[in-house]
Amino acid sequence: MKLFEPLDIGGMKVPNRIMVPAMVTHLCREDGVVTDGIVERYARYARGGAGLVVVEAMAVHQAKSGPLLRISDEAFVPGLRRIAEAVHACSDAKVVPQIIHFLKVARSGWRQTVDMLAPAEIERIVGQFGDAVRRAREAGFDGAELHAAHAYTLASFLSRRNSREDDYGRTLEGRMHLVGRVIAEARRKAGADFPLGIRINVEECIKDGYTVEEAKTIAARLAELGAAYVSLSAGGKFEDAVHVPGQVLFPYTGYSGDRAMPGAWFPAALNTGLAAQVKAHLTARGFATPLAVAGKLSAPADAERVLAEGAADMVAIARALLADPDWPVKVKHGHAERIVQCDYCNVCKNLDGTHNPVVCALWPQRAVQAPPYDPQAAVPVWGADQGALAASLGREGIALEWRKAAGADRYEIYRADADGAPRLLDAQRAVRWVDPEILGGRRYRYHVRPCAAGGRAGPPSNTVVVDVPAPAYLRA
Amino acid sequence: MKLFEPLDIGGMKVPNRIMVPAMVTHLCREDGVVTDGIVERYARYARGGAGLVVVEAMAVHQAKSGPLLRISDEAFVPGLRRIAEAVHACSDAKVVPQIIHFLKVARSGWRQTVDMLAPAEIERIVGQFGDAVRRAREAGFDGAELHAAHAYTLASFLSRRNSREDDYGRTLEGRMHLVGRVIAEARRKAGADFPLGIRINVEECIKDGYTVEEAKTIAARLAELGAAYVSLSAGGKFEDAVHVPGQVLFPYTGYSGDRAMPGAWFPAALNTGLAAQVKAHLTARGFATPLAVAGKLSAPADAERVLAEGAADMVAIARALLADPDWPVKVKHGHAERIVQCDYCNVCKNLDGTHNPVVCALWPQRAVQAPPYDPQAAVPVWGADQGALAASLGREGIALEWRKAAGADRYEIYRADADGAPRLLDAQRAVRWVDPEILGGRRYRYHVRPCAAGGRAGPPSNTVVVDVPAPAYLRA
Repeated sequence: MKLFEPLDIGGMKVPNRIMVPAMVTHLCREDGVVTDGIVERYARYARGGAGLVVVEAMAVHQAKSGPLLRISDEAFVPGLRRIAEAVHACSDAKVVPQIIHFLKVARSGWRQTVDMLAPAEIERIVGQFGDAVRRAREAGFDGAELHAAHAYTLASFLSRRNSREDDYGRTLEGRMHLVGRVIAEARRKAGADFPLGIRINVEECIKDGYTVEEAKTIAARLAELGAAYVSLSAGGKFEDAVHVPGQVLFPYTGYSGDRAMPGAWFPAALNTGLAAQVKAHLTARGFATPLAVAGKLSAPADAERVLAEGAADMVAIARALLADPDWPVKVKHGHAERIVQCDYCNVCKNLDGTHNPVVCALWPQRAVQAPPYDPQAAVPVWGADQGALAASLGREGIALEWRKAAGADRYEIYRADADGAPRLLDAQRAVRWVDPEILGGRRYRYHVRPCAAGGRAGPPSNTVVVDVPAPAYLRA
Repeated sequence: MKLFEPLDIGGMKVPNRIMVPAMVTHLCREDGVVTDGIVERYARYARGGAGLVVVEAMAVHQAKSGPLLRISDEAFVPGLRRIAEAVHACSDAKVVPQIIHFLKVARSGWRQTVDMLAPAEIERIVGQFGDAVRRAREAGFDGAELHAAHAYTLASFLSRRNSREDDYGRTLEGRMHLVGRVIAEARRKAGADFPLGIRINVEECIKDGYTVEEAKTIAARLAELGAAYVSLSAGGKFEDAVHVPGQVLFPYTGYSGDRAMPGAWFPAALNTGLAAQVKAHLTARGFATPLAVAGKLSAPADAERVLAEGAADMVAIARALLADPDWPVKVKHGHAERIVQCDYCNVCKNLDGTHNPVVCALWPQRAVQAPPYDPQAAVPVWGADQGALAASLGREGIALEWRKAAGADRYEIYRADADGAPRLLDAQRAVRWVDPEILGGRRYRYHVRPCAAGGRAGPPSNTVVVDVPAPAYLRA
């Protein structure tokens, strides 16, 4: 499989094409110091077989925020070194921190925008990024990643909505000026041989925001500047965030937030076509800079296809690796059916939005980390009635009910439509579930699978077939 | 070319694959009566060679609005018949009206939503649609199109944001219930042999809105209901519209509005990939229902590619046909270089938003219709200096200036980047233009073409080459 081919990223020998993109954990202390929980979170990804682990965003400065890692002072280096060492001790994965600067937000809904920054403040940001990348190297990371995606400072400068009237705005060159200076400063302070990746939006997904057309040009310029890799995300902006009175804006609450962390109703692999356009643009201009892309790549076949089609060089798999850090080893060893499959419920996103420790709803209750993978662990078993799955059609949709399986912590619900392919619809602990996504005159086949707290799924339940009566207008 | 292959649409013999999708003109009287201007607008499209002309949205009811066509009473039939007859007199194009129902909006920003409708009101809407489609047949149209896209009533029922708690909401069947009943009623009143197309969004492009995943299912159900064609648009919703105090909401003012009428910064053919997914879904289920797709298909090569790749069966070209109704004949006869090219300035959208007569900024000043195409007309000529195009680099970008050409009404501005292909950036009357979309360290080549009021372009000006100095961070 292409997924398991190694890749040289600016001198980093990455053992495979599977990237853990930055995901905030809120497991650090309020002051930004690394905790055992954080170290374990990233060691867990390494043990699971990811090739490149991007550690959650850490701030170059000391601005107020929720619990967020810091790389803003030498004092943070020893803690950060623990993360790098833990990853290296577990596997041959490479590990880089995501480096972030963010502007101020207030509970009133007010937020600082790039046009409010004085030149001296911009100078300070440049210096802070450079120092942060240097510290990343001192902490033993294999490289670093600049966060220029979503709602944060570098992205806001890159944005088509950047309204500065000086050399840091107006033209595309102006919008790129801060990022360019940050890259130069980081190379000067950390060494040009220290791999420096960068994450950008392939589309901003907001009114008047930039689209893949500009992303192509931006990515080519980043390649020209020596970026070790370019990692593509989308959306996640403040501009369309929904303000909850009394809370600071959370940039994943509008449509652009849907596009950054798409829910179950979004198509799989939704950014692949956009990534392919960027990749083609880079290739046509002679840049071999590795490209990563994120966005619902939980199905191994989808991830493999992205690479096989050349749309990108790495797959950035966020929520599906949070759900199951062992996704890579399970795929590699042909046990994809053992994956704890992300159902895109976005409980993790909501935990992030409320500054709570980010865990996966599919993990055992109260677990702070993904449970260990034990191939020999017992799987849940149904009673003699195979779950006695039953369906009833009501006004809310098709309601399913089933009996508990011994050893089951939760259940996966599958539906097959006319094409016969069962698709995962949801995963939950309760034994009742309602499907509103139905049409009259259609036949639906359901089954559920019980899953152990450790993740292993038992055999499917009985299958129940539901014929939904055709509506009167169709029979007429 | 595939573009000029005929197509049978539910019995309508459409001579080619070029559709004029519904575009409001605001040329009718306040009371919704057809005017000479409207008749001429559609005859113009027919003379230009489009295969299927969809007449702007006409309301099934008498609710207050700006100048909008009505099909809500028999009294409107004679006027509407003039449109059908005019199109048929000019060409073998087929012509269908787009039939619309909309909910109430107020200047306060308040708007009626689907959950506010009493069952009796829904019954009335069903009946009104049926009567409207019957009147469309009586008026001599070849078929009709239901408007179930953008911000209007049928779309709001189909929406994933439909919050009704009865049989017209909750499940996907519920969300489709009104559309299904409307189709059945229309077939009962107008005859099942009267081709009835329908326009839907392929994605809503709003928070929690539906995506192509549901659009596939919705399109298949519409095919099952006997839709003569399915026409895909995107976005255009009230949910993210920007409220201007004192004005009613205009549903093309948010990001979803950008997606419905994408500006110059959006990629060409931006909905093609989504359409291809819908088409594949229909084909796999045995539905040959013709599919149309809209979205920046002004380049003949893009339009042809959509058809050649099988992403859709028809191309819906809106603003580019407004700019030049003769696009089809010019492409057919190998004169694509004579097309008055839409620059996606969206002056037409803004005229719509302010309820003014919708004209194209590329037409001669004060023209209410596209000027006639005269292949023999004089083209503008430069003086001996070939326009003396000159460029200067400033803080706003690269500023171009040139001398007027004799007989020129406006100028097209082209830029070629490293790949050498000149791209149209803008079209305007002034002889000064600034390009902010530049990067340092790059070479750009510009030329301008003078265009006559009638549309014909003259020879290119001299080419000016601008080397933008590399920024300091790139030289370091």
